[in-house]
Amino acid sequence: MSGLTHFDAEGHAHMVDVSEKAVTSRIATAEGYIKMQRETFDLITEGRAKKGDVVGVARLAGIMGAKKTPELIPLCHPLPVTKVTVDLTQDPELPGLRIEATVKTTGQTGVEMEALTAVSTCALTVYDMVKAVDKGMEIGGVRVILKDGGKSGRYEAT
Amino acid sequence: MSGLTHFDAEGHAHMVDVSEKAVTSRIATAEGYIKMQRETFDLITEGRAKKGDVVGVARLAGIMGAKKTPELIPLCHPLPVTKVTVDLTQDPELPGLRIEATVKTTGQTGVEMEALTAVSTCALTVYDMVKAVDKGMEIGGVRVILKDGGKSGRYEAT
Amino acid sequence: MSGLTHFDAEGHAHMVDVSEKAVTSRIATAEGYIKMQRETFDLITEGRAKKGDVVGVARLAGIMGAKKTPELIPLCHPLPVTKVTVDLTQDPELPGLRIEATVKTTGQTGVEMEALTAVSTCALTVYDMVKAVDKGMEIGGVRVILKDGGKSGRYEAT
Amino acid sequence: MSGLTHFDAEGHAHMVDVSEKAVTSRIATAEGYIKMQRETFDLITEGRAKKGDVVGVARLAGIMGAKKTPELIPLCHPLPVTKVTVDLTQDPELPGLRIEATVKTTGQTGVEMEALTAVSTCALTVYDMVKAVDKGMEIGGVRVILKDGGKSGRYEAT
Amino acid sequence: MSGLTHFDAEGHAHMVDVSEKAVTSRIATAEGYIKMQRETFDLITEGRAKKGDVVGVARLAGIMGAKKTPELIPLCHPLPVTKVTVDLTQDPELPGLRIEATVKTTGQTGVEMEALTAVSTCALTVYDMVKAVDKGMEIGGVRVILKDGGKSGRYEAT
Amino acid sequence: MSGLTHFDAEGHAHMVDVSEKAVTSRIATAEGYIKMQRETFDLITEGRAKKGDVVGVARLAGIMGAKKTPELIPLCHPLPVTKVTVDLTQDPELPGLRIEATVKTTGQTGVEMEALTAVSTCALTVYDMVKAVDKGMEIGGVRVILKDGGKSGRYEAT
Repeated sequence: MSGLTHFDAEGHAHMVDVSEKAVTSRIATAEGYIKMQRETFDLITEGRAKKGDVVGVARLAGIMGAKKTPELIPLCHPLPVTKVTVDLTQDPELPGLRIEATVKTTGQTGVEMEALTAVSTCALTVYDMVKAVDKGMEIGGVRVILKDGGKSGRYEAT
Repeated sequence: MSGLTHFDAEGHAHMVDVSEKAVTSRIATAEGYIKMQRETFDLITEGRAKKGDVVGVARLAGIMGAKKTPELIPLCHPLPVTKVTVDLTQDPELPGLRIEATVKTTGQTGVEMEALTAVSTCALTVYDMVKAVDKGMEIGGVRVILKDGGKSGRYEAT
Repeated sequence: MSGLTHFDAEGHAHMVDVSEKAVTSRIATAEGYIKMQRETFDLITEGRAKKGDVVGVARLAGIMGAKKTPELIPLCHPLPVTKVTVDLTQDPELPGLRIEATVKTTGQTGVEMEALTAVSTCALTVYDMVKAVDKGMEIGGVRVILKDGGKSGRYEAT
Repeated sequence: MSGLTHFDAEGHAHMVDVSEKAVTSRIATAEGYIKMQRETFDLITEGRAKKGDVVGVARLAGIMGAKKTPELIPLCHPLPVTKVTVDLTQDPELPGLRIEATVKTTGQTGVEMEALTAVSTCALTVYDMVKAVDKGMEIGGVRVILKDGGKSGRYEAT
Repeated sequence: MSGLTHFDAEGHAHMVDVSEKAVTSRIATAEGYIKMQRETFDLITEGRAKKGDVVGVARLAGIMGAKKTPELIPLCHPLPVTKVTVDLTQDPELPGLRIEATVKTTGQTGVEMEALTAVSTCALTVYDMVKAVDKGMEIGGVRVILKDGGKSGRYEAT
Repeated sequence: MSGLTHFDAEGHAHMVDVSEKAVTSRIATAEGYIKMQRETFDLITEGRAKKGDVVGVARLAGIMGAKKTPELIPLCHPLPVTKVTVDLTQDPELPGLRIEATVKTTGQTGVEMEALTAVSTCALTVYDMVKAVDKGMEIGGVRVILKDGGKSGRYEAT
């Protein structure tokens, strides 16, 4: 048993058949961060209203990114998401922004890819908006921290 | 001077005017990794031909992801990329896969967002294909390592 | 109570959670018009078969536009539309074309955004096809005239 | 002479051949408005920071909408826009929001469709975010007010 | 009775109302082929691992193409596919590759367009990857061979 | 030398580097057909105006399909097409419709994939609109008949 469900017995990629899976309420949460220089952190967190709302633009990009998931991930099933939230919090220790995205659906497959894509798109958008002052920013810690609602049960990252 | 070029004097988001920038040959390289359990690493690297080509699918997703960049990043200029390569290498120390993407264009803006998006999409696709056996994988180290060809000169990560 | 459901308690944009809303049959109708010069109106309404079917192209663009709604409207839920019709009628008094679009779905949210997007895309397409002879055309009166099928009950414009 | 350049001699729709047109710097500005009830206007203009930034979300949707133009308008040429700005101003007389979008490119065709699409998408997004409190809002006055840079010369609305 | 359900009584195109159709399990299979010169066939089938996996890339393109169907086919309903497989087999008699795609959904309309689009996109991708050595390849035999699960019953090509 | 330019020396797929290729005027023409039963042919060719313009809808789908090419074909370069025409002619001998698409660009790569995609999308759209009366239609003869303007010179099918 290989466990790689995205390939058939001959090793060919396919979109897994979920026709027989139950339509259930599903939720997933993913997280990640973008690390930057101290000066950059100060720039985007101070006087946010005046200089431009980096966080607001990145949040929206994350939400829209979740909807693009089945176009980006080749073997991902399209499904109608019923909720997307993306939260950015300042972490002066990092220094940088921490991102957390939660996605829900009522469907036959999970939404962890949608949550991960929301986090990634949000982080990439922060990079885009701030790159003129700091090209060395780094995106990391992108992972699933909660998944629930399907046959495989509840998963929580440790 | 805020330096946040994606916002105007009043702090409103806009797509920066690059009309007057020279059309030059531009290149950018980004990197990142996806870290997994030892067993997962062994599974996807051994007997690749037989069980399914995770790396081949993820590489293609990365290349196609580069083309989706202006749809994902709100203030990113659309531009016709002239080359995209995505390389995945096995790192048994991690353990996991290291990803490097290079993008070129002949245009008025840089392609670092395209390179970063290629790396992110590639890593997300690995996650998608392997998540049935390892939900705890983590994407990290996503950053620009080379950018050249524009007014701001050559940038190399240290 | 702010009533702006697309923002959370802290004023952050999010895609509203509709997971608990009932799956019901929903319908929405929107209307609008594009006003033009008398000569332009005569040009596109006379001898339609011979000179080119402006109305046929615009109708199709409206139908396809309805399907693009969740890509265009950031916080709009994706949903599978089950019917889209777009009607254009000549109004010599305007002079111009009146557009009406009706969209149906069986889902958890309404389809008024789909109907409005169909009308807007249809009107923009008329502008595109006729702009070589009349740059001064104006799109207006774009509004919802009927919405039914959800928790908030029937709405009809007065 | 029909003047409808989007149709050939037999009345068949086609994407006009612009291969021989000069690559020039082009600009277009479009405008429009969304009219609402007095209470709605007060709601979205007062205490914007606290209750949610309707204007910020709608501006971003307008900018992204400009990039979607060739997907929405069937016979529209794809071209790489080099600048997009979308401005929303409060008009207490209307009452409502006035929208103005400016798009630039260096290419072989004009960008008035991109400017009009930005205005329309921006207005539709305002509707989406505020519809829970006011379904009767109306979008109007959508037109081109400036176009310059091509063979047909400068156009300014009167 | 015209039988052309995609047009209304006046001959206007519309997206057919399927709101009242039952949500049932649906399946469709389509096939096609791409014919090439003997030398081309040998090139892509021998030593596949070393020279590049044409078949693997084309299969993935076919799967992703199925998801793009409602964007490509104007009057096609969007629906969440629950399974997509694309198989390519070598036919030395042709000589060339035979393609077969199967798509499933649980919905209100059939998925034969998704299966046909998967086959077409797969064949076009083979052409793209091999065209440097053989411009004369030809795609043919694209047709539905099985459709089941809707009101109209089972269809099998003879 | 394998000749498969879409793979590197190790057999990995990549988007070929065209940065150094000259920007030249390029053109490509592709053709194909959709074969149907005699009764179906009569249905869609007689009384076209009254029963619905299958040909007009399919032509538009073909034009829009050309613009979607880089999204569908994984390793295809995005480029701004400068002309797209799609012609459908009735062939009572087939019986069915013959499709021919011509695409032009000023760029660094050819547009044969755009022409082939236009033909395929046009044929698929005919199938979609007529399938209620004839599920056995078959798409074939899809090939490039002219390509000119690049380094490899003029190609004409024999």
